Amino acid sequence: MHYLTRRFSFSASHRLHSTAMDSAANTCAYGLCENIHGHNYRLEVTVKGTVDPKTGFFCNVMDLAAIVKRLVADPCEHQYLNDLPMFQGCVTTMENIAGRIWRTIEGELTAKGMTLVEVLVGETDENWVRLRGDE
Amino acid sequence: MHYLTRRFSFSASHRLHSTAMDSAANTCAYGLCENIHGHNYRLEVTVKGTVDPKTGFFCNVMDLAAIVKRLVADPCEHQYLNDLPMFQGCVTTMENIAGRIWRTIEGELTAKGMTLVEVLVGETDENWVRLRGDE
Amino acid sequence: MHYLTRRFSFSASHRLHSTAMDSAANTCAYGLCENIHGHNYRLEVTVKGTVDPKTGFFCNVMDLAAIVKRLVADPCEHQYLNDLPMFQGCVTTMENIAGRIWRTIEGELTAKGMTLVEVLVGETDENWVRLRGDE
Amino acid sequence: MHYLTRRFSFSASHRLHSTAMDSAANTCAYGLCENIHGHNYRLEVTVKGTVDPKTGFFCNVMDLAAIVKRLVADPCEHQYLNDLPMFQGCVTTMENIAGRIWRTIEGELTAKGMTLVEVLVGETDENWVRLRGDE
Amino acid sequence: MHYLTRRFSFSASHRLHSTAMDSAANTCAYGLCENIHGHNYRLEVTVKGTVDPKTGFFCNVMDLAAIVKRLVADPCEHQYLNDLPMFQGCVTTMENIAGRIWRTIEGELTAKGMTLVEVLVGETDENWVRLRGDE
Amino acid sequence: MHYLTRRFSFSASHRLHSTAMDSAANTCAYGLCENIHGHNYRLEVTVKGTVDPKTGFFCNVMDLAAIVKRLVADPCEHQYLNDLPMFQGCVTTMENIAGRIWRTIEGELTAKGMTLVEVLVGETDENWVRLRGDE
Repeated sequence: MHYLTRRFSFSASHRLHSTAMDSAANTCAYGLCENIHGHNYRLEVTVKGTVDPKTGFFCNVMDLAAIVKRLVADPCEHQYLNDLPMFQGCVTTMENIAGRIWRTIEGELTAKGMTLVEVLVGETDENWVRLRGDE
Repeated sequence: MHYLTRRFSFSASHRLHSTAMDSAANTCAYGLCENIHGHNYRLEVTVKGTVDPKTGFFCNVMDLAAIVKRLVADPCEHQYLNDLPMFQGCVTTMENIAGRIWRTIEGELTAKGMTLVEVLVGETDENWVRLRGDE
Repeated sequence: MHYLTRRFSFSASHRLHSTAMDSAANTCAYGLCENIHGHNYRLEVTVKGTVDPKTGFFCNVMDLAAIVKRLVADPCEHQYLNDLPMFQGCVTTMENIAGRIWRTIEGELTAKGMTLVEVLVGETDENWVRLRGDE
Repeated sequence: MHYLTRRFSFSASHRLHSTAMDSAANTCAYGLCENIHGHNYRLEVTVKGTVDPKTGFFCNVMDLAAIVKRLVADPCEHQYLNDLPMFQGCVTTMENIAGRIWRTIEGELTAKGMTLVEVLVGETDENWVRLRGDE
Repeated sequence: MHYLTRRFSFSASHRLHSTAMDSAANTCAYGLCENIHGHNYRLEVTVKGTVDPKTGFFCNVMDLAAIVKRLVADPCEHQYLNDLPMFQGCVTTMENIAGRIWRTIEGELTAKGMTLVEVLVGETDENWVRLRGDE
Repeated sequence: MHYLTRRFSFSASHRLHSTAMDSAANTCAYGLCENIHGHNYRLEVTVKGTVDPKTGFFCNVMDLAAIVKRLVADPCEHQYLNDLPMFQGCVTTMENIAGRIWRTIEGELTAKGMTLVEVLVGETDENWVRLRGDE
């Protein structure tokens, strides 16, 4: 089985704050992350598939790139993530960002014959989250 | 279970062109990739195994390195991949390159007691393919 | 399922030498690695879990970071690994270092509700070992 | 002559907006950068000096690190740069950030016998500014 | 004085062959580099200037980026460099590529008020050439 | 003027200890660095020159690479730097290592027509020293 990964990045701001918790609980859970700060986010999207013997690939990396760029990387570029429609109703942790990105891109990828298997969201070179489906 | 990975790189040229498709279909599928262009290819080979308590490793990373260097990295260095025996009869997509490398190194790795589990081929820091066996 | 990874590094020295083998066998197995040399070690610890809808994460990356820093990264920083209690009774190969780190951190991570799934130890950018549990 | 460089990073948010220009001029000059967005900032501080034959270095890299961390990296970490005292009265471009950091750290570095020669501020891996004194 | 650097990359093929030398001399000078091979080229362009107090920068990084992308990065992307008009009449060494890029972009940069001070061309992470004017 | 840089790395151990200072002064100056620890050292050697119009380069990057590899990178690989002839009579700080490497390679580089302008020695990605001659 082949797995194709495409890497993206976007520079954005966010803050961690949950309306389900009071002020003290927010401070306790998020610390400095309650401040509006920002990152050069790393986004890696992985799809799997079977190679088409005629073309030698199972999906065009350009199709994958265009979909994720249009639906995620461009709308997030130089934005405050907490204000984006894509992330309404959730705290913008890496876990939730990965979940919302998955939901945002899965349909078009499937329509193009790609099976989404992993969305990686990293805030820095030192910490990242991977959301994985069934491989 | 332990997984050992060794990373290699080689600078080579290639073009994507399929003899199974006519000119228009080639252009449609490959775009600019039909031109002879090149990359500093990234190659990561992963094997799995059980640690030998006497030596503390399950295969010598030097054995792994020597095999892949001799069979793949050296023959590909500063070459036009489409002309190499290793890649005859296939379009030199990352998917096919990974498949041919797998086929080229699996025998010697198995003979040395290593089980090949993944071959990663990357054209740039932004896109790569992983070919995986059963983990 | 979400997977959270945190990356650490420490600069340390070590040598590979097994008391279970005679001098010739050590030289044969380890070559130049028998000399006391050193690395900027890369350590990546991955845990898995389910997101708490209230906070938006399943474990605080700060908890993970604090535990691994206190139990591993700080005690190894600028040390000769072969002399550390953590690595007694084993050859300091990447495989064994990963195994001992796993054993060292698993208890506290579990107590904090995190399931350890992978410990990656790398000596250089070109070679690394991943020790994985059942994902 | 020896030059010693120490690299730091901090994750922060900012926006580009000049009170000396009207709304249209701001949009024209800054585009998307007028939005509150963020980066993992790269900061590299370079000092020069002559080696002390007794110690083998001309300034302790730890002194340099401690000064820049206390005066710049820690106060900027997870903050909105436009609100910090350090950046009042200027637009938070890379050029101005570098200038204010220079002004902030030069005194203590000089007092410790180091001559500041360059402050590099980078927003991403693709763009950065270096402010240099007379080398 | 402020120095602004912008980094670009393009994937291209080339070969080293001089019509001013016979076959034996070419082989002696270039070795494997006579083969058509390729790289993910790194290109870093540095300009200097004085900060405009109104905007906080001395040239818009976007202007710099647009000029170099249009004149160099886009025309070189996925091409065989030896065939491009930009590199006619010279061997495509890093030295000559840097020289031709300098000549290609200097006019438009000057017209926009930027003083070009350095063009860096790198074939791999291990070797690169910097062409510098008078700083 | 063209500047050519070649990057090398070697994994080695060292400790900082000066025989010109007593035990307390050593501890005060070097802290944890008095322990035998290690690094994946980064070494970047830069030479300058004028392009030969016939070949298109002013020195063969292969000549530069071969000289530095033979005289420095290979002898340092997997060694305890304090024991090497190259570093006798000095504390193995980055400053001194750079100085001794300069002295070791300058002769052969000059003999090949290259002018050495900078030796960069880095212990980690966060700190490095550059020794520069007159540019």
